[in-house]
Amino acid sequence: MKERIIVTMPKKEMIKEWYNVKADLPFALDPPLNPQTKEVITPEALSAIFCPSIIEQEVTTERYVKIPEDVLDEYVVFRPTPLIRASFLEEYLETPARIYYKYEGVSPTGSHKTNTALAQAYFNARDGIKQLVTETGAGQWGSALSYAGTKFGLKVKVFMVRISYNQKPMRKYMMQLFDGSVQESPSQSTKCGQEYLKEDPKHPGSLGIAISEAIETVLNEGNSRYSLGSVLDHVLLHQTVIGQELKKQLSMIGEIPTILIGCHGGGSNFGGTILPFIPEKLDGQEIRFIACEPESCPTLTKGEYRYDFGDSSGFTPLLMMYTLGKDFVPPKIHAGGLRYHGSAPIIAKLLKEGLIEADSFSQEETFKAAKVFSKVEGIIPAPESAHAIAGAIREAIKAKSEGRREVIVFNLSGHGLLDLSAYA
Amino acid sequence: MKERIIVTMPKKEMIKEWYNVKADLPFALDPPLNPQTKEVITPEALSAIFCPSIIEQEVTTERYVKIPEDVLDEYVVFRPTPLIRASFLEEYLETPARIYYKYEGVSPTGSHKTNTALAQAYFNARDGIKQLVTETGAGQWGSALSYAGTKFGLKVKVFMVRISYNQKPMRKYMMQLFDGSVQESPSQSTKCGQEYLKEDPKHPGSLGIAISEAIETVLNEGNSRYSLGSVLDHVLLHQTVIGQELKKQLSMIGEIPTILIGCHGGGSNFGGTILPFIPEKLDGQEIRFIACEPESCPTLTKGEYRYDFGDSSGFTPLLMMYTLGKDFVPPKIHAGGLRYHGSAPIIAKLLKEGLIEADSFSQEETFKAAKVFSKVEGIIPAPESAHAIAGAIREAIKAKSEGRREVIVFNLSGHGLLDLSAYA
Repeated sequence: MKERIIVTMPKKEMIKEWYNVKADLPFALDPPLNPQTKEVITPEALSAIFCPSIIEQEVTTERYVKIPEDVLDEYVVFRPTPLIRASFLEEYLETPARIYYKYEGVSPTGSHKTNTALAQAYFNARDGIKQLVTETGAGQWGSALSYAGTKFGLKVKVFMVRISYNQKPMRKYMMQLFDGSVQESPSQSTKCGQEYLKEDPKHPGSLGIAISEAIETVLNEGNSRYSLGSVLDHVLLHQTVIGQELKKQLSMIGEIPTILIGCHGGGSNFGGTILPFIPEKLDGQEIRFIACEPESCPTLTKGEYRYDFGDSSGFTPLLMMYTLGKDFVPPKIHAGGLRYHGSAPIIAKLLKEGLIEADSFSQEETFKAAKVFSKVEGIIPAPESAHAIAGAIREAIKAKSEGRREVIVFNLSGHGLLDLSAYA
Repeated sequence: MKERIIVTMPKKEMIKEWYNVKADLPFALDPPLNPQTKEVITPEALSAIFCPSIIEQEVTTERYVKIPEDVLDEYVVFRPTPLIRASFLEEYLETPARIYYKYEGVSPTGSHKTNTALAQAYFNARDGIKQLVTETGAGQWGSALSYAGTKFGLKVKVFMVRISYNQKPMRKYMMQLFDGSVQESPSQSTKCGQEYLKEDPKHPGSLGIAISEAIETVLNEGNSRYSLGSVLDHVLLHQTVIGQELKKQLSMIGEIPTILIGCHGGGSNFGGTILPFIPEKLDGQEIRFIACEPESCPTLTKGEYRYDFGDSSGFTPLLMMYTLGKDFVPPKIHAGGLRYHGSAPIIAKLLKEGLIEADSFSQEETFKAAKVFSKVEGIIPAPESAHAIAGAIREAIKAKSEGRREVIVFNLSGHGLLDLSAYA
């Protein structure tokens, strides 16, 4: 019988602290700027859109942040997630590399997004907030936050980019199942939404517009805060449960990774996966980190490193990052979750400093990787996650032609069962 | 931190034989009859639609049938499936019962159907067949067979009930991803399909019509055989991997189940779950088996026990079963996989002999169970499987009011991620 190694981790080994890479970096990050004054933004200025606990986590310099017991009680529903040896993929590729993937698709809403959604919902509820407002593109984030909201008794309002709202009704149904309220963006319920609709009554929407609508709503409705699913430091912080578990699981089977791979949209799943390994890299361990992005939205591979807005309308603080420009409109590719003009400031800085690499993939190469993976490994990946698979395959083939025994590990950030139309 | 018990099973403990309950029953089953002659059907008469290995398994009297190595190599992709303690559901219900579920949704196509699909594809390929033809309602079976076909190099042709074809495009995309060819039924490609379309060019289709189209295609196309996803003895045989694993997993944690529950459509997931426990029941162990079905398609609870056809057009052998009549048209309920007029002859006989029970559930009770389960356990169940959850909840509440410490185990036969529209 063929071998199939799945590294599960006992529940009692659950990760109990988030890891803050900023405590270990030998350089400082460029701080976010106030869009009006262009000065370093103050925590007070952020408090209109984020609750105090979240702001505290955004700026903390502590190496470890304790995960609250109530969040752990929710993590335990699906964590630790499995680490799987991709033995069937190795066999198919005839590669000498050993390939593993950490599988975040087992989460209740099917992606890694749930890790930060639960944390954000918990802290907002503890700080007395009654409603979270957010935007969603492909819908993974909106589903995750709706689920988290229902767990901690918060109302959740989601602005969903119209084109996805219409193309991915299943995601909308999932949000509704978890009591989230979803509306198409641009909508009539905000001023900025109305303006876009005046321009074009059938406006397809964009992530940038949806963010603007969410923030406007927060500013106008009482006891509401904004919630973001990627990019910011606290979001990457929450995602480090992935990389920390991964580290333990690899050491349980005596493996030392030589290449760590994740797909890159805003940077949260990539960051969550690799950040806990940064100290080893700084200590001189030979390990490469590769962020995989679509050729059609090449933020890290072709963007400029400079201050830019996180949204299209210029409501957010200015962030130092690789950016294609806030007005960049990505061509209509399927990996909705990777269609973002910018990147997480932490990831951008690591790239700038040469600690990580970035690589880009055509839609064709990505789709082919997804199809092969579905057939041999029996898991249909999210189109976003398929970029990480494509990256792993590219490295595994290189290892074969160069005769090197790499240990390649990638994060399979979500399943693609609600994105099957993209494969049609 | 809350407790979350997931009983995984080492791969080396994989079940290596299917269990044939017929070897242990103290009574004989009534044999299938030839529809023309009304005499007991001969294996030869079946050979036009089934390959020799499958017929052999349909009629075998051996207690155990060895699972071929090649099938085990495919089972190992997703088996053993986990057994999960529903501790959050117990807490929600405040029940003294301990509740567990076996989770088959981890299979590559999201349901237990893959267990028999892989076996059927393997045996047909080994017997030199080049194409499998089948029908599908909600699409789980068609996806599973397409996946299995691509594994063993067989072409797979699926007739999908038109109403589902249109309502569940994701299932169609999944079949296509696995190289299955799918067409709406009734179709123009068969004579019987043409007749139904003549009656009504927009005929919504039915499982019975799709079966007839599949069989007609098999009889007309060379080197093709028919494949059925439920009802027949060999299908239940293949599904006994579920119950056998379950038995091992329960004994690993020292639990003795008092109630075993499965949803019932054609009987394969229910049978696969409970049949391996029949010997204990015959030995006098106190254990109840409950088949859960929709009130709107009450085959076991309101059907007649008699010979009937497996399809609507009367092409199949006559089977002794509980039936609502081959012309029964179930109201348009969402659990597409449970909309079948008949039942597996093995299950029917067990019910007739009083070894198992059946219970029915309204759509409202079922949906409520699904929603609660999604929220507290973090898994969105298939609408079919939600009937088993409703059954478990009903028994857990009874245990509470009667103060009994039951050990309730149910099979969660699949996830509902492709059926989210049904929850809308």
